[in-house]
Amino acid sequence: MTSPLRIGLAGLGTVGVGVIKLLHANAELIARRAGRPIEIIAVAARDRARDRGIDLAPFVWVDDARKLAARDDVDVVVEVIGGTEGLALDLAQATLAAGKAFVTANKAMIAHHGMALAELAGEKRLALKYEAAVAGGIPVIKGLREGAAANEISRVYGILNGTCNYILSTMDAEGRDFDEVLADAQALGYAEADPSFDVDGIDAAHKLSILASLAFGTHLDFASVVVNGIGRVTAADIAQARALGFRVRLVGFAESDSSGLHQSVRPTLVAINHPLAHVAGAMNAVVAEGNFVGRLFFEGRGAGEGPTASAIVADLIDVARGEFGPAFAMPVNQLLRPTPASEGSRCECTYLRFSVVDRPGVLAEITAAMRDSHVSIENVIQRGAAPDGGVLLVMTTHECSERAVHEALSRLEGSASILGAPMVMPILGV
Amino acid sequence: MTSPLRIGLAGLGTVGVGVIKLLHANAELIARRAGRPIEIIAVAARDRARDRGIDLAPFVWVDDARKLAARDDVDVVVEVIGGTEGLALDLAQATLAAGKAFVTANKAMIAHHGMALAELAGEKRLALKYEAAVAGGIPVIKGLREGAAANEISRVYGILNGTCNYILSTMDAEGRDFDEVLADAQALGYAEADPSFDVDGIDAAHKLSILASLAFGTHLDFASVVVNGIGRVTAADIAQARALGFRVRLVGFAESDSSGLHQSVRPTLVAINHPLAHVAGAMNAVVAEGNFVGRLFFEGRGAGEGPTASAIVADLIDVARGEFGPAFAMPVNQLLRPTPASEGSRCECTYLRFSVVDRPGVLAEITAAMRDSHVSIENVIQRGAAPDGGVLLVMTTHECSERAVHEALSRLEGSASILGAPMVMPILGV
Repeated sequence: MTSPLRIGLAGLGTVGVGVIKLLHANAELIARRAGRPIEIIAVAARDRARDRGIDLAPFVWVDDARKLAARDDVDVVVEVIGGTEGLALDLAQATLAAGKAFVTANKAMIAHHGMALAELAGEKRLALKYEAAVAGGIPVIKGLREGAAANEISRVYGILNGTCNYILSTMDAEGRDFDEVLADAQALGYAEADPSFDVDGIDAAHKLSILASLAFGTHLDFASVVVNGIGRVTAADIAQARALGFRVRLVGFAESDSSGLHQSVRPTLVAINHPLAHVAGAMNAVVAEGNFVGRLFFEGRGAGEGPTASAIVADLIDVARGEFGPAFAMPVNQLLRPTPASEGSRCECTYLRFSVVDRPGVLAEITAAMRDSHVSIENVIQRGAAPDGGVLLVMTTHECSERAVHEALSRLEGSASILGAPMVMPILGV
Repeated sequence: MTSPLRIGLAGLGTVGVGVIKLLHANAELIARRAGRPIEIIAVAARDRARDRGIDLAPFVWVDDARKLAARDDVDVVVEVIGGTEGLALDLAQATLAAGKAFVTANKAMIAHHGMALAELAGEKRLALKYEAAVAGGIPVIKGLREGAAANEISRVYGILNGTCNYILSTMDAEGRDFDEVLADAQALGYAEADPSFDVDGIDAAHKLSILASLAFGTHLDFASVVVNGIGRVTAADIAQARALGFRVRLVGFAESDSSGLHQSVRPTLVAINHPLAHVAGAMNAVVAEGNFVGRLFFEGRGAGEGPTASAIVADLIDVARGEFGPAFAMPVNQLLRPTPASEGSRCECTYLRFSVVDRPGVLAEITAAMRDSHVSIENVIQRGAAPDGGVLLVMTTHECSERAVHEALSRLEGSASILGAPMVMPILGV
């Protein structure tokens, strides 16, 4: 055994505590696998007094996390503070500037500043690792960066937010509406007090932009991700989707084709025979489609103390072994600049839900608008009452551009037949 | 770009040709991801004249694959010849002895000689890589060696043979018996002319022993894998399993607990809500259960030109990047010697199918034998005729040792009530 890999840990929330527990519980095994012990030397957090249920006495306490970067007794800084900028970013920059490896679970920071940090790391051939930032314990960063590296990847997509999947699964299982299930999820600690980061799709969009960069060999481009949250999905949508042979999931979807890079996070109808349809509760899953390997599917727990700590320590083991290289699979100057596809240009089948007034001519009016925008309808279900007192009208279209669907809907804007804004969701077939 | 990684390719069957096609089709992308081009310099195969549908003119032809090891213009030898010993093993030894990296898809050779080869490679810190040997294109060697490396793994199991899964899926979908579906699979090229290696479970057992070594940090122990093939599974078994909420799959299963190492390959009833139940056709899938990460699930294509080539070239990219270490995650002298659990000691729920004579007292006789061996019965289905003219009697048990079930069956040996040997399959719950 050679000398230990010495860790400075910044952040002692759920994940930080998980890292301490894991390195303690599996210490011997990890030393065998890593070729050397991995030991936490120093920790930093805001509140020293808080009871975290673990003994912090073995570690040097550091009040300002930034100071971990300069310590001679620290080889790697692990950042589990969170936040796009501020302390987390200062720490990342200081750590790499000091010539140390940096491991993070911070998807927001990587999505926004990953290229700049990768350049810093690349200049000095330092490890910059972020397996825990996407899909928790599932080794999907490694799966794309290394496992599927021989392939031209055409699409990468998946269920990237456990809170949203828990809410949608529970709505499905219990036939309840979003607000109710969200309130329960908050009470149970499955959703944050301010849930917007999750339910509005921002968290999934951060993760998606990271997967897309790795899959396509392109610069991170978080800004061009089209994001719709799950707040407008109703129990009725889920029931109608089910009747048509689909489940509703929040899908982060990235595709690279001749029209450019499509990146979106949208509630999506997933065909019941697609593996993503079986991903239930707080699980995450990622699909990558390569030109030689075909479809790869990875599933596991996407968040929480244990899975996130597992991913962070996997990164530390890579560092201890010296098995690491450029953070985004190649030097930043080799990554291509993506051309975002123009919004709405992707062809897909679409689900539409209207609440309509119960009178003659309404269906004719809507179907005429579809026809005039060259949108071909595959299924129509008109059944019972919508929540707002109207009649629920659900349609699915044959494949056509999103733009055509939006054009048809704009023809119907202001129509006295339609109550409220229609719900539009893409359909993901088998 | 630095100098290319130069490959000597031994074997020009489906997989070898796939490697050539992949390295050609994705050359530019691979060079970016690997940091340098990966180029085939020399190839070796038995028959130079055979038309393989590709142009071999760019490559040096070598008649004796062993000679690839000594060539100054070769950095890595890729072996896709196959066979436990003989040419493949000679080549592996010669390559490592010559100080070169070795990449193989050969599960039989790794299962039998992996430890000796890993020692050879370890002495000189050479890459010995075999991602393609298990589960084709799915990066599951990497998933265990690196992705889940922080975890104590309690179980690793999966569907490791695409031919068997194709046969079982087709039997299920079409309600047909084994022999018929096998004959069709042979005609379609999905099964070999001599299918015994696949359908008897040997191929899956090779792969399982490799996964177990990586998961548990133990020496390879192929000899202790309990292997039952799928030849005795009938359409009636599959139909009854379905009625009880299960699918039948050939599952390679390894578990490490206080009683030792359990390794088996057996046709298994898989609960319909378990992810393995949805793995259809020639797909493969692997589950690993870790003490921090929970359950990880990997699915993809387990064989064929494209997926196997994808895994081989992923290994080559790791070599080109210099991101590799000990073949079995740690030096061989750090691997523990496994203690195989005594056969039949594992507790599990069990499926039993009898063909019985239609007369009074038969059920009493069988259930008495179960009672006397302390086997508790959960379900009984007696329905219609068995293929041999008897009555089909199906039981599932509560959890008990395999040994107890075998004891109960031995009590019934020679009974005039029972026609032929009963079928016994373990049950894998959710």
